[in-house]
Amino acid sequence: MERLTSALLEDAVDQISRMPGIGKKSALRIVLHLLKQPKADVERLGNSIINVRNKIAYCKVCHNISDTETCSICANPRRDNTTLCVVENIQDVMSVENTQQYNGLYHVLGGIISPMDGIGPSDLTIDDLVERVKAGGVNEVILALSATIEGDTTSFYIYRKLAGYDVKVTSLARGVAVGDSLQYADEVTLGSSIINRVPFKQ
Amino acid sequence: MERLTSALLEDAVDQISRMPGIGKKSALRIVLHLLKQPKADVERLGNSIINVRNKIAYCKVCHNISDTETCSICANPRRDNTTLCVVENIQDVMSVENTQQYNGLYHVLGGIISPMDGIGPSDLTIDDLVERVKAGGVNEVILALSATIEGDTTSFYIYRKLAGYDVKVTSLARGVAVGDSLQYADEVTLGSSIINRVPFKQ
Repeated sequence: MERLTSALLEDAVDQISRMPGIGKKSALRIVLHLLKQPKADVERLGNSIINVRNKIAYCKVCHNISDTETCSICANPRRDNTTLCVVENIQDVMSVENTQQYNGLYHVLGGIISPMDGIGPSDLTIDDLVERVKAGGVNEVILALSATIEGDTTSFYIYRKLAGYDVKVTSLARGVAVGDSLQYADEVTLGSSIINRVPFKQ
Repeated sequence: MERLTSALLEDAVDQISRMPGIGKKSALRIVLHLLKQPKADVERLGNSIINVRNKIAYCKVCHNISDTETCSICANPRRDNTTLCVVENIQDVMSVENTQQYNGLYHVLGGIISPMDGIGPSDLTIDDLVERVKAGGVNEVILALSATIEGDTTSFYIYRKLAGYDVKVTSLARGVAVGDSLQYADEVTLGSSIINRVPFKQ
């Protein structure tokens, strides 16, 4: 790393390089770029970073990110409130929303059961999910978690927790990804997609 | 890009994605990371960005970045003030400093003559450089500009401007880069390194 002749510059580079995916070199390039921008623009950037952390809230119902007490998805009367899609985090809500194939509500767990990282069921919003189901009106809970050991463990844990309630529990289809060649699909995925084969649609 | 359920989030992502080398996806990842950090840390980041833009100053002598009127290099009595190294920008000061092979002072042009980008000699600190030489005490001016057409044009312009003064004008050696195979060196570079060959040192 180059030696810098300014403590202010050094501090800014140091702070920016703590952001994920940004090293010291990129941070320096960013700061030198910012120095050439109008003061007002740089102030907007700085304040926007401070604001998002200080003012952001989470939806009381589904724990999705929200500017209001109830997020825009939960508050939308045109969405199907009998179906809940359980996801690990906010990014996954965005991913599912992006498919434009889902019109139900969400439940954001805030993580996934991972003993290696010290994350147990009590660190997640699983009890809240059970409460939502217990309150009635939910017909189906879709477990949309990652196809990993941790994801499967979490899915199984939730499935057991919901066993006593009159609710259908489903999970995402596992199969060959769209655009993938069969020869590159691993055998577990390919096997799963044979077992769960679906009627041919043109 | 995913649809976001929070205007605050959207604003922060939008602002961060304006930084060079950061797209919308990375910006979202950065914001979601920031949301998990302590408020004090995020405030430090935001303020550090605002401060660096608002409080940074440039050295009155060499135009290098500085927290004070005169930068730490110009103010250092142990540096050789009879030699000036002319560079395009602050990054280049850092690069030369990093070699630990130079103990003179600098002169930062603030750019390079580039008619295509509308940058002429009057946009740079060339007049200032001439003043520094005119004031006396400078024995050598090293032109350390990029080996491009713009760099060479700027070097030639400065060389002409300094022609009337009793000062040695030198430029960086052009040659085969350390670690490079001869077969990959272009002929102009290789030719230049033959013409400017140096006594063999063990």
